[in-house]
Amino acid sequence: MFHDTPRFPRGVRCASRNCGLKPTAKDLALFVSDVDAMAAAVFTRNHFPGAPVILGRETIRGGVLRAIVANSKCSNVATGARGVENARRMASATAAELGTSADRVLVSSTGVIGVQLPIEIIERGIAGMSGDLQTDPLVGAEGIMTTDTYPKALSTSVTSTNGRATITWVAKGSGMIEPNMATMLAYIFTDARIERDALDRMLRDAVDVSFNMLSVDTDTSTSDTCAVLANGLAGEVDQLEFARALTAGCIRMTEMLARDGEGAEHMIRAIVRGAASERDARRVAKSLINSPLVKTMVHGADPNVGRLLMAIGKCFDCDVRVESTDAWINGHPVVRGGTRLEFDDATVRATLSAEVVDLEVSLGLGDGAATAYGCDLTKGYIDENAAYYSS
Amino acid sequence: MFHDTPRFPRGVRCASRNCGLKPTAKDLALFVSDVDAMAAAVFTRNHFPGAPVILGRETIRGGVLRAIVANSKCSNVATGARGVENARRMASATAAELGTSADRVLVSSTGVIGVQLPIEIIERGIAGMSGDLQTDPLVGAEGIMTTDTYPKALSTSVTSTNGRATITWVAKGSGMIEPNMATMLAYIFTDARIERDALDRMLRDAVDVSFNMLSVDTDTSTSDTCAVLANGLAGEVDQLEFARALTAGCIRMTEMLARDGEGAEHMIRAIVRGAASERDARRVAKSLINSPLVKTMVHGADPNVGRLLMAIGKCFDCDVRVESTDAWINGHPVVRGGTRLEFDDATVRATLSAEVVDLEVSLGLGDGAATAYGCDLTKGYIDENAAYYSS
Repeated sequence: MFHDTPRFPRGVRCASRNCGLKPTAKDLALFVSDVDAMAAAVFTRNHFPGAPVILGRETIRGGVLRAIVANSKCSNVATGARGVENARRMASATAAELGTSADRVLVSSTGVIGVQLPIEIIERGIAGMSGDLQTDPLVGAEGIMTTDTYPKALSTSVTSTNGRATITWVAKGSGMIEPNMATMLAYIFTDARIERDALDRMLRDAVDVSFNMLSVDTDTSTSDTCAVLANGLAGEVDQLEFARALTAGCIRMTEMLARDGEGAEHMIRAIVRGAASERDARRVAKSLINSPLVKTMVHGADPNVGRLLMAIGKCFDCDVRVESTDAWINGHPVVRGGTRLEFDDATVRATLSAEVVDLEVSLGLGDGAATAYGCDLTKGYIDENAAYYSS
Repeated sequence: MFHDTPRFPRGVRCASRNCGLKPTAKDLALFVSDVDAMAAAVFTRNHFPGAPVILGRETIRGGVLRAIVANSKCSNVATGARGVENARRMASATAAELGTSADRVLVSSTGVIGVQLPIEIIERGIAGMSGDLQTDPLVGAEGIMTTDTYPKALSTSVTSTNGRATITWVAKGSGMIEPNMATMLAYIFTDARIERDALDRMLRDAVDVSFNMLSVDTDTSTSDTCAVLANGLAGEVDQLEFARALTAGCIRMTEMLARDGEGAEHMIRAIVRGAASERDARRVAKSLINSPLVKTMVHGADPNVGRLLMAIGKCFDCDVRVESTDAWINGHPVVRGGTRLEFDDATVRATLSAEVVDLEVSLGLGDGAATAYGCDLTKGYIDENAAYYSS
């Protein structure tokens, strides 16, 4: 259902460049809709939101955006009033470059926490950027990368009154990832015509089963932002079809972020059903995806069924019963009624070497179901995060 | 306040041996009080408790113990009715060996989950073990080790009517450690005379601020057990003095377990004060100790203040305010009013290389305080847990 090569909706373009925050890699990205777009966004629930998140919450109340500007290297978090002022300057510089107003520009910054934004360098970088605008989403995706190993974009189409409407996702994020309300940075663009309230509702529903079920390392960033812009150039769409496509793309992008988690060699999906409630299903799925012992079990390709039971069983506040708990690893039954089954060790060991490992659990208690997305824990994660130099 | 060399209270002895579960290392331990002891215990809250925990909950209702028997290598978890029957046989064999009744023997098993206990081997191992009983607690501690790098025991004294009463802690546990109600295995022996209800209350209070605040890897074992035996041979003690000593020893043993966490090179203490409630303080302290990015920051000796703020800020359900949040690393101020302070980078970097790293946080909102205990995250953890072979 996704295009082989990601492309933008009508009237959406992007640019990215190195403005001097990093030695040579791209560190500045601009996403522009040629016309005003209805917009919705969700942000991190961390108590220490970055200045761009503080400003973004104010900006998104207007419900209309023309552009998103994002820098990497410095997150503008824990920078006080001066940080918010610098975020405003970043919006203003972008508005001036595009001939719009600052309240239609969403700002994101990611990178080191606790350092003031070098705003003059960024302002100089933004100047002239409108001349670079082009139609490949991967160019913008490259500009927002930090520890990602490749730029991430995705697009699909739904039927609209003007033919086809496109939905395009651009995202990044591979560490400090257990979003709550959004992922690190995920931008969604469409030329479908959607009213703001409907857009906001559809975004929240989609994020709830996708980015909010992603965890690389249980750590919730101070910069998480997920925004959607709908510029209407493709006309009306069937809202149900659009909502389904929106959710499917958010889930696919979540899987891409999980697979590219810091140091990851496997993507893990924890698929829980039969829970007494959806809340219970979500908690058990997150417990599996977050357990260091489950993550290292996948890394070591060892069918250590006890670790699955441990991770399910440590959800103290959930309804879990030994006798009704079944589990499968990539479709192979490994637990029935809370007891480890006899299974062919070599077969299950082999399937654990697959790039995608599905851990399925049936709690046998009700209709609650949920899927969480994560990755294995490797020495690569330790390398990236113990060697990271913050100052 | 602790003895230079750990020793047992009057009338307590132990033995350990290799009974054949492991190739050559000790895999069976026996702790005995010569006379009946008042006893209390707390167990894991995991929904999949091992058979010894299921039996232990029944046993401890009697409030009197003569012995504890523990094997390593096989945890007797997820083993159904046969598992419970095997745990009973282990208690009966021990009772027969010691000339007491099975309801006065507490059983523990740790090791691989989902495999039936080789009970005949263990029964043969228990036979004749009373002849090996001796007075060095480290001999018993050696018999319960799994991935620990050294046997852990500790003792102290308080005044009693017969002179001095001794309290001795023997514990193990270095992975699958975020106890809830108890740690992996921690046994406490005393010759003080304490009534059962008081002993139970004092144990719960002590565990609450010690083992329940320990996390090596957020994973809660299915076998956690903490038991205290008071045989009364030293007579009455001042209960307040005893309770203080009990808590102090549980905290010290918690620190020993944290420092010896799988792969650990540093012990980390997260000391939170000024929280709106004790509940908030405990959550924030746990969030710091459990954050992979904080753990790798300590491992890399990088004063990445942003990760501290992130870990405090992701406690969504706690009262946290940017402007009143201060933080210190080993006494060096690094955050004031939610903003990173200028500090001498080399000095803070150097202090992060210390074996014990204290991360102190003041939330500036109330009187809530708590300390959590953990360790850094290293490649050693990945090595131990990805290479672990479950079958």
